[in-house]
Amino acid sequence: MTGMAVRNRFTGGAGYASLTEQTIRAFLESNPEVSKALGGRSQGWSVREVGDGNLNLVFVVKGPVGGVCVKQALPYVRLVGESWPLPIDRAHFEHEALKAEAAVVSDLVPKIYVFDKVRAAIVMELLEPHIILRKGLIQGIRYPKLADDIARFAAQTLFSTSDLALPAGKKREQQSMFSLNTELCRITEDLVFTDPYRIAELNRWTSPQLDHIAAEFREDAPLKIAVQELKWMFLSRGEALLHGDLHTGSIMVTSEETRVIDPEFAFYGPMGFDLGAFMANLLLSYYSQDGHATAGDDRSDYQRWLLDTLEMFWGRFETRFLELWRQAGTGDAFVSGLFEDEAGRRALEAYRVRFMARLLQDSIGFTGAKMARRILGLAHVEDMESIKNTDVRARCERRALILARQLMVGRSSISSIAALRQFAETCRKDAL
Amino acid sequence: MTGMAVRNRFTGGAGYASLTEQTIRAFLESNPEVSKALGGRSQGWSVREVGDGNLNLVFVVKGPVGGVCVKQALPYVRLVGESWPLPIDRAHFEHEALKAEAAVVSDLVPKIYVFDKVRAAIVMELLEPHIILRKGLIQGIRYPKLADDIARFAAQTLFSTSDLALPAGKKREQQSMFSLNTELCRITEDLVFTDPYRIAELNRWTSPQLDHIAAEFREDAPLKIAVQELKWMFLSRGEALLHGDLHTGSIMVTSEETRVIDPEFAFYGPMGFDLGAFMANLLLSYYSQDGHATAGDDRSDYQRWLLDTLEMFWGRFETRFLELWRQAGTGDAFVSGLFEDEAGRRALEAYRVRFMARLLQDSIGFTGAKMARRILGLAHVEDMESIKNTDVRARCERRALILARQLMVGRSSISSIAALRQFAETCRKDAL
Repeated sequence: MTGMAVRNRFTGGAGYASLTEQTIRAFLESNPEVSKALGGRSQGWSVREVGDGNLNLVFVVKGPVGGVCVKQALPYVRLVGESWPLPIDRAHFEHEALKAEAAVVSDLVPKIYVFDKVRAAIVMELLEPHIILRKGLIQGIRYPKLADDIARFAAQTLFSTSDLALPAGKKREQQSMFSLNTELCRITEDLVFTDPYRIAELNRWTSPQLDHIAAEFREDAPLKIAVQELKWMFLSRGEALLHGDLHTGSIMVTSEETRVIDPEFAFYGPMGFDLGAFMANLLLSYYSQDGHATAGDDRSDYQRWLLDTLEMFWGRFETRFLELWRQAGTGDAFVSGLFEDEAGRRALEAYRVRFMARLLQDSIGFTGAKMARRILGLAHVEDMESIKNTDVRARCERRALILARQLMVGRSSISSIAALRQFAETCRKDAL
Repeated sequence: MTGMAVRNRFTGGAGYASLTEQTIRAFLESNPEVSKALGGRSQGWSVREVGDGNLNLVFVVKGPVGGVCVKQALPYVRLVGESWPLPIDRAHFEHEALKAEAAVVSDLVPKIYVFDKVRAAIVMELLEPHIILRKGLIQGIRYPKLADDIARFAAQTLFSTSDLALPAGKKREQQSMFSLNTELCRITEDLVFTDPYRIAELNRWTSPQLDHIAAEFREDAPLKIAVQELKWMFLSRGEALLHGDLHTGSIMVTSEETRVIDPEFAFYGPMGFDLGAFMANLLLSYYSQDGHATAGDDRSDYQRWLLDTLEMFWGRFETRFLELWRQAGTGDAFVSGLFEDEAGRRALEAYRVRFMARLLQDSIGFTGAKMARRILGLAHVEDMESIKNTDVRARCERRALILARQLMVGRSSISSIAALRQFAETCRKDAL
């Protein structure tokens, strides 16, 4: 790559400038489809910057007919500032991932109007009245379709991009392209798998209450081996195109609808990483609920609903993934033509069950890693942060950390989702 | 990729034409370094096409001062003919792999003079008086440095290109490039992991003697699961830059020197695949020796030497790989800074031992796959093919197949290289 190309990845080439409430109007007006969706003239549109994530600008634009959402990559990490540059070509990877997802679960992702490569901006459907799932969970709202929708999202996207579904050449081409999303992968590599286990400038935690357990984590050799083994999997196993950041802040919901957004971390990685991300964030919510209890509602029913959702998620995921494999296993792995006789069919079916059991163990390990980093690392979750009493918050967080450690170190001894649930409940009670 | 680009990958762009004993002179004369290495004028050079491989043209050119070897990719599989097109850009991947290898084991690979992208030709050092290792093994020649040299080749190339040594971004960039070597990977995917286990036009075996066991392999459900699990690893585990075809026909030797050639199958895959390729070909030679026995030499001493070489190879590989990991583990996996205290050092050291044990099991599985494909698939080995008496040959091959099956199905129960050796010996005796 030339020096110029490298610089452009980070700062944008000619034509890139971060959008403002002013410049965005002309940009959107120039596209007939967007203009029509908004209606009227651009001077009359309302424009609001609403980005509360860590990396990007997000605008909500509304006109007399409808609204759109515009997401623009900034050339640095918004959460940290210009001192941490980040290439804007992540918008390209996000757009490519959104297309791959839309091919199999179009009802679960936002509709795309425009991808503008020069501006590193994606114009998409405005999701309204959807809210960020994490905020709904903090409020204690139940989402009856959530488990099955995310199970379907994960099963379809992971299966359809894997060697179980694709010819090897097609998959290698996709993997080649997404392998260049290196800087976003690096964020995960450092912030999830490494920093929480060493002294790192960006780490933070509820202090002084968690000082002791944070120090224990940094000195826990078996735990560090376990988390680095998960990192090795993250680095070397290109099993499927991952969303890469499938937490409850990347999901928007109503009681009727579920949409998965923000796949800018997309790359070919181990399937268990996406599954673990979602499970980790359900469990973080579970442990945080004690901090949101009120006199009128101790949240115990809601905690039960969260664990029901966790169990149902895995069950539905497994069922759907296996259905896809049985019906559409046209890829170059486990070539279906080899197993057409009765003995072959039985052996393959038995293998599929073992495959799913191993995938559960991988997912459980990644669940632990994704929980711990949200308590000891740079990026925390509002589920916990919004608990104002730091003693109460620390108590919730400590329980989550105790489970997280066990999931990483002991993932191979947890053989079912029911066992995981029970384990999560035990950790809450033991540490009460 | 445009249609033109795809076509050029296969048939060559403007300027590509397969070299002849005539046109090669002008090509080489145009390069001052090559011209000097050969000496004199091009009319005086001797040119000989010596390619006996499956895919390429290979010329040996000699002048009054010295010689060079020219390898040119043909746009089809030489073994099969123009009906099987194959992209000539594999020469690019071979050149890139040769450079990566030369960076760590320059004494074990040929020196490169020129890579001509348009001609898809590599001009390299003429290895003389080296012979192809496979031919030496057939003659019963001992190579005292072989085990250690290939151990060093494998340890250095696999380690230095893995996440144990490289920053993740650098590795992902390399992997992205090599992921496009799709057509060569496809040959392995089909011919090694799939075709021998189904009716396939290109399969062949010593018939009728092996008809029965070939049919058994095609109906052996546990074996087919095992080989497809190995294929899944081949497809999805990008652990290191592999040579991709590390058999005894890709190694040239004298009693003093070892050189590894022909890495055109290079890609990021599971380390065990390269290790298994070499081990498989030692074992094929071992089983073939009974077919080369004469009244004066029953080859039993030589068989012992082959198994000694196998054992020494793994032992030296393990030692060297672990040394590299301890001394140069600067990669993003198993971040060394996390394990600097006494407990950390001990835990990491214990993990390394487990890592090597798992790598041995992977390697043993791939050993089995690489043995079976050479007896039941398209491409056979001269070690067996040169046994004229087909009954004798079939007996050798059957023993190899019996071992191969056990290595694939039972790889997780073989816990040391000594156990593998013993197993190999037992299969030879049982089937005598």
